[in-house]
Amino acid sequence: MTDTQAIVFDLYGTLYDVHSVAQQCDASFPGQGMRISEMWRQKQLEYTWLRSLMGRYVSFEQATHDALVYTCRHLNFELDEATCATLCDAYLNLSPYPEVPATLQRLNNLGLPLAILSNGSVFSIDSVVKNSGLQTHFANLLSVEPVVVFKPDPRVYTLACEALGLSSHQILFVSSNSWDAAGARHFGFKVCWVNRRNNAFDELGATPHVIVSGLDELPALIGTAQV
Amino acid sequence: MTDTQAIVFDLYGTLYDVHSVAQQCDASFPGQGMRISEMWRQKQLEYTWLRSLMGRYVSFEQATHDALVYTCRHLNFELDEATCATLCDAYLNLSPYPEVPATLQRLNNLGLPLAILSNGSVFSIDSVVKNSGLQTHFANLLSVEPVVVFKPDPRVYTLACEALGLSSHQILFVSSNSWDAAGARHFGFKVCWVNRRNNAFDELGATPHVIVSGLDELPALIGTAQV
Repeated sequence: MTDTQAIVFDLYGTLYDVHSVAQQCDASFPGQGMRISEMWRQKQLEYTWLRSLMGRYVSFEQATHDALVYTCRHLNFELDEATCATLCDAYLNLSPYPEVPATLQRLNNLGLPLAILSNGSVFSIDSVVKNSGLQTHFANLLSVEPVVVFKPDPRVYTLACEALGLSSHQILFVSSNSWDAAGARHFGFKVCWVNRRNNAFDELGATPHVIVSGLDELPALIGTAQV
Repeated sequence: MTDTQAIVFDLYGTLYDVHSVAQQCDASFPGQGMRISEMWRQKQLEYTWLRSLMGRYVSFEQATHDALVYTCRHLNFELDEATCATLCDAYLNLSPYPEVPATLQRLNNLGLPLAILSNGSVFSIDSVVKNSGLQTHFANLLSVEPVVVFKPDPRVYTLACEALGLSSHQILFVSSNSWDAAGARHFGFKVCWVNRRNNAFDELGATPHVIVSGLDELPALIGTAQV
């Protein structure tokens, strides 16, 4: 398993902290920021899965908007249009995890092409990456838009093979979302799960090849028996 | 919209209370019954959606088992095999909601065929319905097994049309799960959402035709402008 030719990262929750929106949520709903952010993220994921299954794709921005609307209705919080727009915009300005910039540079120095494969729209991915100044590190920013379905549908993972001209086993896929890591493993990628919070891995019939507690552990693993 | 020719019910959470397993959970993990039951149910649903998207169907029993294993690992509860088997068996002995038996009888008296369309396997559905003594009320017990995918994939809803020989608009589909009600509405059923807990309806681009707070409200609605 030492023939890794490229590294493909998930974006939301892996390179970027989705809960960096909690601060803006807290400004609009004092004391409720993390509660809103957590339910919002959970519903956002559910809506991507459910709309994929129903064959009713909408953009990630729309699913994110809908999930926020539901969350505020569920919690009985009044959400006016301006606040809704402000909070949804926060998803375009997520913060990378602290170790990410230096890690990407170290991986660039190893000479492997890096890519992002994300549920986000082309616009969302571009915005998040450019707003954080990390765009020079990536050879490809890949959105689910061309296949109008979300992860973990295998058509999404195929996009990375096509864009990079590689077989699935030549790609190391890196995700913090264990359901995404499981889907990627079923697809055929080599898989690294980033387990920052010492969570249990989802029971979906597939396990990652390697587990790290932060992305800074990744460069030393490249070229080892694991990856 | 008064041409309803049959009523098709969701099973888990609609006719039967999934949290009737909380008592058995509490016997094994004192004081934690409802906490386990709620996370178990959430994960069970997630696993049906994720496995459907990954094209990695397993039976509902297997997904239920896997969700319990994850839940106990996540909560750091030791789950031995005997306890696991006991708790999974509890899903075959769910209690119907209190109003269900009398409501089914009243609907039978109206002469409309009644059916169940469920994520459960043939074995699970048969077990739950027979163990509660309600099997005589139903013309059809329909499992997702033939299409090896879970709700809200439209192939599941198609099973009801095929089994009953009816068009989607001739069927009233009844579910407490708002994502299921939304999927059924996108499919083309007439839809009744059973909202027992005054929840918000999921933001999935579809709304139910009618909302009730318990199934006992349903017989009076049959033949009205709503259903």
